[in-house]
Amino acid sequence: MQNYSRSQRSPLKSASKPFSKRPNANSSGSSKAFWLYGLHSVQAALLNPIRQKSRIVLTSEAHNALMARLEGALTLKPEIVEREVLDKLCGRDAVHQGIALQVMPLPNSDIDHLLKRKGPVLMLDQVTDSRNVGAILRSAVAFGAAGVVMQERHSPEESGVLAKAASGALDNIPILRAVNLSRTLQQLKDAGLWAVGLDAHSNLLNGADFSDRRVVLVLGAEGSGIRQLTKKNCDEIASLRMVGDIDSLNVSVAGAIALYEITRHYF
Amino acid sequence: MQNYSRSQRSPLKSASKPFSKRPNANSSGSSKAFWLYGLHSVQAALLNPIRQKSRIVLTSEAHNALMARLEGALTLKPEIVEREVLDKLCGRDAVHQGIALQVMPLPNSDIDHLLKRKGPVLMLDQVTDSRNVGAILRSAVAFGAAGVVMQERHSPEESGVLAKAASGALDNIPILRAVNLSRTLQQLKDAGLWAVGLDAHSNLLNGADFSDRRVVLVLGAEGSGIRQLTKKNCDEIASLRMVGDIDSLNVSVAGAIALYEITRHYF
Repeated sequence: MQNYSRSQRSPLKSASKPFSKRPNANSSGSSKAFWLYGLHSVQAALLNPIRQKSRIVLTSEAHNALMARLEGALTLKPEIVEREVLDKLCGRDAVHQGIALQVMPLPNSDIDHLLKRKGPVLMLDQVTDSRNVGAILRSAVAFGAAGVVMQERHSPEESGVLAKAASGALDNIPILRAVNLSRTLQQLKDAGLWAVGLDAHSNLLNGADFSDRRVVLVLGAEGSGIRQLTKKNCDEIASLRMVGDIDSLNVSVAGAIALYEITRHYF
Repeated sequence: MQNYSRSQRSPLKSASKPFSKRPNANSSGSSKAFWLYGLHSVQAALLNPIRQKSRIVLTSEAHNALMARLEGALTLKPEIVEREVLDKLCGRDAVHQGIALQVMPLPNSDIDHLLKRKGPVLMLDQVTDSRNVGAILRSAVAFGAAGVVMQERHSPEESGVLAKAASGALDNIPILRAVNLSRTLQQLKDAGLWAVGLDAHSNLLNGADFSDRRVVLVLGAEGSGIRQLTKKNCDEIASLRMVGDIDSLNVSVAGAIALYEITRHYF
């Protein structure tokens, strides 16, 4: 799987566009360093050229495992520690696999970059659970989505928990944090994308409908669903075929199924 | 793909088999009481007549919310407490929503019961993560599976974490914990089910193949996948269509998509 890189694109071009209120702001709207942990997350971050890293702390076993996985040399000086140090660093219950990397959040992506990539775009309307968002990123990578749009507010910042659930996907797909989700949705529609909102009790989502249409798939929060304004801006609302209702499904599961269905005739 | 169906075979043939080593044992192989928490999990357990409950501990707000949801009266005496008591009871990081119910694990299900119900059967081959198993139960209910089979060993016991991820599904679908998974798989095949193992790099899983066949869908652990012996006993191995490989997907997400695909022409 390839790391996404914006290195070929002129920074001047995006600087003149109004897509990002703060073109130099970090993707999570924060400039705070945090710890990524787990072998997949750390490896993906190390291989992502635009990810700023400051420290790597790991057990000697994890160091061996990492060296076997990495092709190039590790540019950071490894700090070899006992497992307990990592327990403390990453927090209780964190499955750190003996490895942690201190990083800065990624820079915010922009619409031009998303549009240049292939595949559908995912839009998350106030999905706030870090683990769900991480899981959605993972599925987005697995099914070839171009990128993920979420609100600058009411969405989780980058964190160890989110990155662990994403299992490396956080560093493998562009994320655009938008100030105004409806405006970004309109921009995507203006660029030719078909906006499909996933909700209960509507027409069945049918992959065959999207064989020659690029889609932006909009997912709402578990329970409350897509907000009215966002829903109004969708070209269609579609549902999954199920025995229970949409509340029976975790949002990351519902999103993955919808993405699978939408890309049914893409590849 | 072969087009014969075993569904016409007599179910009597399988009924005489020793399906459960310990028909009176608890489903989790344990007789230890534990705490369920969260509104959905607790409500589902309260409404499940075969679930043994001993105590209900909740905040007054949660008590009001529960009373509004339950149709009948609460048969347990509610112990109204402050939130902090529940924090302590359920463990740090548990999203208990102000409510906890002390229960016993459910009794083990058996093949006859699974076969009498409609829909595909799910089989988990050493999926050990409680949260993943809970999420799988949730999708199993959402897509009308008949029940879930897992190994007695190498599978998580019932717990608050598992039940919370299942969001009520733990009390809404039969679980059969089998001593020998391959033997149970054979029994399901003898009863006419078609065994589909989900794995990478195989033929594409296609819902149209299963419109008139009842399926047992076998899922392996993340990373290692289905064990060789189990795989050998499957009638076919099928894969999801994806850009990444099966490791890119969480097992509960992969399982949900496969179940969705398999039930494509069921309903």
